[in-house]
Amino acid sequence: MLKLVPLGGLGEIGLNMMVVEYGDTIFVIDAGLMFPEAYMLGVDYVIPDMDYLRQNRSRLSGVILTHAHEDHIGALPFLLREISIPVFGTPFTLGVVRHKLEEHDLLASTSMHEVLPRERLKIGPFDVEFIRVNHSIVDGVGLAIRTPVGMVIHTGDFKMSHTTMDGMLTDVNRFAQCGEEGVLALLSDSTNVEKEGHTISSQEIGNELARITEAAKGRIIVALFASNIARIQQIVNIARMRGRKIVFNGRSIEVSVSIARKLGYLNIPEGMEIDIDELSGYLDDEIIMVTTGSQGEPMSALSRMSAGTHKQIKIHSDDTVVLSSKFIPGNEKAIGNIINNLYRQGADVVYEKISRIHVSGHAFREELKMMLNLTKPKFFMPVHGEYRHLVLHTRLAREVGIPEDHLILAQNGQVIELDENGFQIRSSIGAGRVLIDGKGIGDVGRSVLKERRILSEEGLVVVNMAFDEETGIVVYGPDIVSRGFVFETETGHLLQDAQCVILEIVEDVTPDVPNRVDKIRSRLQTALRQYFFFAIGRRPVILPFLVEV
Amino acid sequence: MLKLVPLGGLGEIGLNMMVVEYGDTIFVIDAGLMFPEAYMLGVDYVIPDMDYLRQNRSRLSGVILTHAHEDHIGALPFLLREISIPVFGTPFTLGVVRHKLEEHDLLASTSMHEVLPRERLKIGPFDVEFIRVNHSIVDGVGLAIRTPVGMVIHTGDFKMSHTTMDGMLTDVNRFAQCGEEGVLALLSDSTNVEKEGHTISSQEIGNELARITEAAKGRIIVALFASNIARIQQIVNIARMRGRKIVFNGRSIEVSVSIARKLGYLNIPEGMEIDIDELSGYLDDEIIMVTTGSQGEPMSALSRMSAGTHKQIKIHSDDTVVLSSKFIPGNEKAIGNIINNLYRQGADVVYEKISRIHVSGHAFREELKMMLNLTKPKFFMPVHGEYRHLVLHTRLAREVGIPEDHLILAQNGQVIELDENGFQIRSSIGAGRVLIDGKGIGDVGRSVLKERRILSEEGLVVVNMAFDEETGIVVYGPDIVSRGFVFETETGHLLQDAQCVILEIVEDVTPDVPNRVDKIRSRLQTALRQYFFFAIGRRPVILPFLVEV
Repeated sequence: MLKLVPLGGLGEIGLNMMVVEYGDTIFVIDAGLMFPEAYMLGVDYVIPDMDYLRQNRSRLSGVILTHAHEDHIGALPFLLREISIPVFGTPFTLGVVRHKLEEHDLLASTSMHEVLPRERLKIGPFDVEFIRVNHSIVDGVGLAIRTPVGMVIHTGDFKMSHTTMDGMLTDVNRFAQCGEEGVLALLSDSTNVEKEGHTISSQEIGNELARITEAAKGRIIVALFASNIARIQQIVNIARMRGRKIVFNGRSIEVSVSIARKLGYLNIPEGMEIDIDELSGYLDDEIIMVTTGSQGEPMSALSRMSAGTHKQIKIHSDDTVVLSSKFIPGNEKAIGNIINNLYRQGADVVYEKISRIHVSGHAFREELKMMLNLTKPKFFMPVHGEYRHLVLHTRLAREVGIPEDHLILAQNGQVIELDENGFQIRSSIGAGRVLIDGKGIGDVGRSVLKERRILSEEGLVVVNMAFDEETGIVVYGPDIVSRGFVFETETGHLLQDAQCVILEIVEDVTPDVPNRVDKIRSRLQTALRQYFFFAIGRRPVILPFLVEV
Repeated sequence: MLKLVPLGGLGEIGLNMMVVEYGDTIFVIDAGLMFPEAYMLGVDYVIPDMDYLRQNRSRLSGVILTHAHEDHIGALPFLLREISIPVFGTPFTLGVVRHKLEEHDLLASTSMHEVLPRERLKIGPFDVEFIRVNHSIVDGVGLAIRTPVGMVIHTGDFKMSHTTMDGMLTDVNRFAQCGEEGVLALLSDSTNVEKEGHTISSQEIGNELARITEAAKGRIIVALFASNIARIQQIVNIARMRGRKIVFNGRSIEVSVSIARKLGYLNIPEGMEIDIDELSGYLDDEIIMVTTGSQGEPMSALSRMSAGTHKQIKIHSDDTVVLSSKFIPGNEKAIGNIINNLYRQGADVVYEKISRIHVSGHAFREELKMMLNLTKPKFFMPVHGEYRHLVLHTRLAREVGIPEDHLILAQNGQVIELDENGFQIRSSIGAGRVLIDGKGIGDVGRSVLKERRILSEEGLVVVNMAFDEETGIVVYGPDIVSRGFVFETETGHLLQDAQCVILEIVEDVTPDVPNRVDKIRSRLQTALRQYFFFAIGRRPVILPFLVEV
């Protein structure tokens, strides 16, 4: 039997990681991270629990990457740090990975293998063919995995765009050939299953960008995802058309552009790019700037421009700022604030809600149906989505004719066993999420997050007192300090009154009472909690330090 | 000169409050609150700074409410608690206000005056006419304010729906008559100025709801905003059509339904409503339930149903749950999680992204243009929006022919002076936001929020030590306690190593050093900060308590 074990991505957008297993051979498709949800206070990012790979490390033969987005490659350093296995991917994907592994000091110890679309790769009993797909990053692929029980297709992240800037159309013909050859199972991207119809073409985006730039009187500042090389190429082409110089600003853009140029994925005419320091030598209408911060990230170049704190770029009143990217849910407020501030600085701002300057990289419903119809799979398993996306994607597959009992609605950690005759899910392995905070991997769990939440909403009161060990007399305090609770200046009486509450308890519990300090501590906790809630309606964390000296 | 002073709502969605002033008379339009933004940790809600009203309390003659949404009436108790003035509004608006003032113990001390659409109200030199507008709550109005310098129209929150369930169409004719009479200035709702075209009609929503309920095999559970009485009436009508009983669940729904029924805004046929405890007497396909929690609020009825923790309602596999409301930005993740969980429980879920079961209560661009063309104002001032909405709304007004220098792009706190000849903004009053946390009004400011943010992201380390006053010998500690920082069990060595760091400093600073404890405290801060960052990449708040006894 073929086994598929999703370690992440089936229950969230992010964390994509799928184990493929037959006999003695295991390989992994993608190793992605996820950015923390709002309740994960202080967490930098989240990776899948890779315990299953640790337990089966001797059988693990490699990791195949479908493309270079963080939700597909971001967990790779954490995998490779523990288990050194070969990495397979297309040239641009490996270019980005190389840069990442260098930062993690893992480059020398990792063997990387370039595979081009329509090329095949042998891993044990598997024959894995790369098939070009169009996505919002260059050099993405889907996989046709020929296994002893039949062919499994994994789409990667894809859409069916018919005009692209990078010439990287989804290889419809090859998917069709696979469909004719016979596909046992299709694993397909579910991100946009809620969206009717088709994605708009990048040509429309290009036309809209051209129109905006034609009308612009001053500088044009375009904010986008650093990895969207095709969009950057569009802007370069527009700059050439308008006779403008191009400036790249922001570290991630510079890295991404440098990798893409080196590998020939981005063509910038000689002499067109200038450095940010050379700006003063040009008029405003001779400049297009490409920058980051389209998600409202607080330290990004765009955020600093909008707040007037960018060292080199002050917004001018004839600047046109274009946010050529999606408003990712959760970021709308931050993005909205940046737009408001840019308007306050006098710039004109163009963004997704008022103009067609962005298109998703993920297929809409009609495109998802097309993938199903091209590959004609016997079984269908939606991947890359929250649970509702997976449910809706199975329904879509039902609509195009896949029988109900051939739909595999699986979740992270479930072991899907599959062959020509059917599939079954009989067991689960421990899948989950590991939170990364600073250098700590997995040491921030539910209890720490809960403490952080309470601290963040109610603040903290620390009480400090020392008692003479022999006499029980108070030799220090009560000293009360608060953080994140109230303005101490405005509420001096509040903390003074709290001191009285404490002293009353101390008086009440006479020195002859056994375990006196413990008794005082526990009564003090309760009394202060009640007092603060009565006085100000809050429940701060109370930390009493009562010591005997 | 007429003065307009926005205290809130021009720079945010929420906090709506506009001062209208002529000679010795001041009145206020609306007194709204805003729900806290993500960075306002622990804050319950936000109200406008009302200092200007305090300073001018002797001239303050009343507050006129346009409708009963929280962003228009939520700050009323805070105003009335300090300054007792008459409140004017339509019957349903005052019904909701009455309930709210009762909770704040302000009902007896407040005089309330019902005004119906097309009725007029005299306040000093002002003649204020109420004009019916359609919105997502019943009994909303706009205002035609006749002043000594001309007529000012304030739209309130409105849209131009031509079919409604509540018969409360926007009174287009009356706005047209005002336009013919001559309008000095229009103040109009900017919320949806980013949206092209027209809002869809509530009839379409009704048809879609009817279609969904026809297909439903089991219970139908509709989640919506409690104040959306017209939508509730639609559902009641559908229940009648399908021969189902109706159950209201959730406190805010029950309050809202009770007010609306009492005032005749909601008609439920005799014997149709049943109590939640009577559910067991009916089959699933005999029930429609109306509930709250469409924004993913964690303690709401819907959230508890989705998590399987609702006491009375367990989700059945043939339940159809309809979220008949907008995904408010910032709430998408929470709403998404509820949908995922409902699917996991086996229910079918219908929501805005996949079905036309909600319509905004605010006019889209074509409707905004219509309001401009009906009233033909000399001057135009956008209200009710973030800064970008206000900018886009002035541009829209420019498109329909208002000259550039007749557009009033104002912000909170600016004093707009206006007469037949023109307007000027020469001064500002101190406008701002006041944060409410528990019973504390305004005592949570920037510094407390910053402390909460750091605590929430990095946690806290408290160090406790006592020194003998005479000898300098350590008589207690160092005792180290952390909260929200790391798992203490997993990182025991981390805190142990920190103890060593501290002891080294104590050894280093010999007892003869002047101000020894202060020196140790400050070196300890620095050393621990460096140590934790080096060891685990985090920067917790460090609170050292070093005392001499």
